[in-house]
Amino acid sequence: MATKKRGKQTIQFTNPPVLLQTATIVGPKEGEGPLKPYFDCIISDRYFGQETWEKAESKMLEESVKILLEKNNLTEQDIDFMLAGDLLNQTVSANFAARQVGIPFLGLYGACSTMYEGLILSSILVDGGFASKVIASASSHHDTAERQFRFPTELGVQRNPTSQWTVTGAAAVLVADSGAGPRITYATIGKVIDLGQKDASDMGSAMAPAAADTIATHFQDTGRNVDYYDLIITGDLATIGKMLVTELLKQKGFNFGERYNDCGVMIYYPEQDVHAGGSGCACSAVVTCGYLYSLLQSGTVKKILGVGTGALMSPITANQGESIPGIAHAVAIEM
Amino acid sequence: MATKKRGKQTIQFTNPPVLLQTATIVGPKEGEGPLKPYFDCIISDRYFGQETWEKAESKMLEESVKILLEKNNLTEQDIDFMLAGDLLNQTVSANFAARQVGIPFLGLYGACSTMYEGLILSSILVDGGFASKVIASASSHHDTAERQFRFPTELGVQRNPTSQWTVTGAAAVLVADSGAGPRITYATIGKVIDLGQKDASDMGSAMAPAAADTIATHFQDTGRNVDYYDLIITGDLATIGKMLVTELLKQKGFNFGERYNDCGVMIYYPEQDVHAGGSGCACSAVVTCGYLYSLLQSGTVKKILGVGTGALMSPITANQGESIPGIAHAVAIEM
Repeated sequence: MATKKRGKQTIQFTNPPVLLQTATIVGPKEGEGPLKPYFDCIISDRYFGQETWEKAESKMLEESVKILLEKNNLTEQDIDFMLAGDLLNQTVSANFAARQVGIPFLGLYGACSTMYEGLILSSILVDGGFASKVIASASSHHDTAERQFRFPTELGVQRNPTSQWTVTGAAAVLVADSGAGPRITYATIGKVIDLGQKDASDMGSAMAPAAADTIATHFQDTGRNVDYYDLIITGDLATIGKMLVTELLKQKGFNFGERYNDCGVMIYYPEQDVHAGGSGCACSAVVTCGYLYSLLQSGTVKKILGVGTGALMSPITANQGESIPGIAHAVAIEM
Repeated sequence: MATKKRGKQTIQFTNPPVLLQTATIVGPKEGEGPLKPYFDCIISDRYFGQETWEKAESKMLEESVKILLEKNNLTEQDIDFMLAGDLLNQTVSANFAARQVGIPFLGLYGACSTMYEGLILSSILVDGGFASKVIASASSHHDTAERQFRFPTELGVQRNPTSQWTVTGAAAVLVADSGAGPRITYATIGKVIDLGQKDASDMGSAMAPAAADTIATHFQDTGRNVDYYDLIITGDLATIGKMLVTELLKQKGFNFGERYNDCGVMIYYPEQDVHAGGSGCACSAVVTCGYLYSLLQSGTVKKILGVGTGALMSPITANQGESIPGIAHAVAIEM
């Protein structure tokens, strides 16, 4: 059998899997942002009718899967496998949602890059003939992330100007072996890269080196030129990480110009007081499954390189003096 | 392309991937147990020369990968991808080990079933033509798990008779598209199942229903008979979970008799004061990669059904009144 590996870290899909459908659900703040028209559901209450924020986050992930199934008139029995993850300790949002949904389940942890890890593994399952329909899903919630990684929001601790705002939301995408829709043609799986950044309130700087490495590797492995893509979109580097990755890629000879943007920059208006911008698993997940998917379906753009980014630390590693490793996975999505 | 899906939840590999090599590293207590001769490295100090137990755990995972590479005279550049996970918040043992190793990385969270999830996804990558050589790895550490999930060990809290002892150790396995060794022929991916058990000091009972469901589904999906396998081995149900899964499977018409055992029962002597038995990601990982791999290579047994088991809760979900969902993934390993 011919190998599907290209270069050092890239997979070329033989029968590019189709993103048959997506579903997105976001919190009130995200629903007031510039991408409002592209989300399926905007919740008005960050508790989403649950007793705790953690249960609300899990419920959002579950709902994103249910909306996805309803949109395509499918049931859980029609789906071969579900892959999901989130930021919470022991990825409980995904695990408890998977309990409710009942689809055979594989849990992932890629921090904020999780949706892109899920897209890659779902595409591998489908292109490899192991499944016909796979759902990838991811979630995050501002209040669960704040109290787990930083401070309880009730404390009202002043936020650092470099800090990012964890997106409240969840998204699910149906990856299938046939049908109409954008297709995943290439995937570049990233290495864990750590240049020694230790400031837990500046995740963009910690993740930028991994993003730059994966993007440069993608172009080397595929032999594609920068202008092949209409858009190159990173996951949640926000304003500071976006500046850094632009600079790092310039040093490697890449000039993306206007075609490069970041989901963490795109999801909020500057006046929404989110400091550097958005972050969290839901950031790249809802922007990709909402806005970018819509651009592809409408034909506004034809070729996107999406790059999920994640910071792989925990509060314990920070307390033990460790720096913050980053990872990035790139996926070529083409109409 | 012919689908490789069989029945509801099972994959049949067309070119069954080879378990080309394994590496195991365990703590002092595990090195005094009945499986002592089957481990590559027994550390004498639970700190493993590090400042903290968390760093020791990550170092063990890193070392297991390095031992694996050395045994086969390979370097990191020879490996396409690495898949790993552990029990710590944000799976930092795996993430930080992956930073040191430098192989393109996909992070997993399947609680104590993580090594089996890694075996399945590695086999999918190899059988699907996406990779030639993939490493799957997992770790756990008694002291990191105790202080994260229960109490700091220094407190000396009396342990419940139903509680299990988290195995200190790590294992890595090299899954390849060619070469000699046991092969993975089938994989059954489990659902998240929760019968309402809430006692966090009785994980075996929480995981047994998922194990029974996956095992029964495996036999239905493959059409194999119970006596096809020389051994059927669950991951870390320990004595109580082993009794329960035996009873649950009897109700479904399965009688496994002497061919069934559990890694959590096998890894310690009863007099080692581990109460119900072993648990943790390393439990199924080191027993499978150490003892079971050796049995297969020596020809003592030819066909094993290994079943990784995981409890998918966190201390937060327990505090918020949730019960404990379980998951189990089965892998047929044949010589």
